[in-house]
Amino acid sequence: MSAAPDEVRPSDTHGVDEAITHIAAHDDCLHLDAAVREDASRRLKSVRGHVEGVLRMLDDPNVYCVDVLKQVSAVQGALRKVSDGVLRSHIRDHVVTAAQRGDTEHIVDELMEALKYKA
Amino acid sequence: MSAAPDEVRPSDTHGVDEAITHIAAHDDCLHLDAAVREDASRRLKSVRGHVEGVLRMLDDPNVYCVDVLKQVSAVQGALRKVSDGVLRSHIRDHVVTAAQRGDTEHIVDELMEALKYKA
Amino acid sequence: MSAAPDEVRPSDTHGVDEAITHIAAHDDCLHLDAAVREDASRRLKSVRGHVEGVLRMLDDPNVYCVDVLKQVSAVQGALRKVSDGVLRSHIRDHVVTAAQRGDTEHIVDELMEALKYKA
Amino acid sequence: MSAAPDEVRPSDTHGVDEAITHIAAHDDCLHLDAAVREDASRRLKSVRGHVEGVLRMLDDPNVYCVDVLKQVSAVQGALRKVSDGVLRSHIRDHVVTAAQRGDTEHIVDELMEALKYKA
Repeated sequence: MSAAPDEVRPSDTHGVDEAITHIAAHDDCLHLDAAVREDASRRLKSVRGHVEGVLRMLDDPNVYCVDVLKQVSAVQGALRKVSDGVLRSHIRDHVVTAAQRGDTEHIVDELMEALKYKA
Repeated sequence: MSAAPDEVRPSDTHGVDEAITHIAAHDDCLHLDAAVREDASRRLKSVRGHVEGVLRMLDDPNVYCVDVLKQVSAVQGALRKVSDGVLRSHIRDHVVTAAQRGDTEHIVDELMEALKYKA
Repeated sequence: MSAAPDEVRPSDTHGVDEAITHIAAHDDCLHLDAAVREDASRRLKSVRGHVEGVLRMLDDPNVYCVDVLKQVSAVQGALRKVSDGVLRSHIRDHVVTAAQRGDTEHIVDELMEALKYKA
Repeated sequence: MSAAPDEVRPSDTHGVDEAITHIAAHDDCLHLDAAVREDASRRLKSVRGHVEGVLRMLDDPNVYCVDVLKQVSAVQGALRKVSDGVLRSHIRDHVVTAAQRGDTEHIVDELMEALKYKA
């Protein structure tokens, strides 16, 4: 009965078992896939380095505005890759299984809210 | 001294004085306003701290995807404030004076290119 | 009857009944909810009227650029409401049930592709 | 003294003449370039046709959500081309001459406001 949500077999998820799985899901299972987490970390470390580069640019009194704008756009593009990876992982591991867990309404509201600010 | 960029016709719009101003502009003037530069620096240091906070979140194997998405969106919002400040300063200090300097075509192309990636 | 798309393993997740449901899904079920379809239609008719209003603005040789930009932005905002409604409906009715149907991989790829161009 | 803003010659725009030009600008001159206006019209007529195509899609009870999302994205992309054309024209014809006219503050505020909703 310790099946994680993404391995749930339809035949055994109804009634009491489903309630147990559901609680377990919120305690233990709806977390970010380890490989995606590591990829996001690696990308964010690169973002941090990029931000430090822009900070150094800004120490130069002769810096040109458009060069700063370009670098900030590049950082935003890198952040978008972070959030796209996490978003894909969330949809693949948690959203597609919401009907099985029985938390569709919550998952949908939460996802639409997250997408509202998608840059 | 009559080498002017873009569509400028030296014969009727540029005396020697203007050409000198123009050269000076590229050496000294088309840089980012000091106060805006400091504001951008201050905001970017906060962005860097925020990125470090997300990196710590990602060290937690139980982190929830949507919480990461929210934090990345918040960082993107903060970066947008950085670029909006720099963009406003660029338009106010350099774009509105392009006709006077005679580099309209270059300034417009460059600005449209920068806006293409505006997040 | 056991031909299932993507990662589904017929042996442990699909009985005959589920296969039938699955086929039915592609014939009858993965369509847009009727109420959402009507809401989208109603909004799009308003968008069409708005576009016609902007076309009339553009017939005026004295129209001011920024007024056109504002109206085009308003149309884009109205279109975003159309796509947000359809997107929410798609996630609620089709994405959350993908694990049950066994077409997770396809549904996720398709959704991420659709979100890539989200304005 | 009836020179339009985009033909202003720096030598004759200061003092009283500038005030006159400035008033004229708001009455007669800060309008959208005719060729850009026609291009925007042509593109918007195509947008209207595209919207009508999506309306016909929505009459089909079997329409698939993602197909609607793709078409709405395509319409948004076409609208973006309209606003990019108008924006470029506004910057080229009105923003780069703001220092000459003396309405920099107003032009910058207005442009930043228009860019805020840029999709």
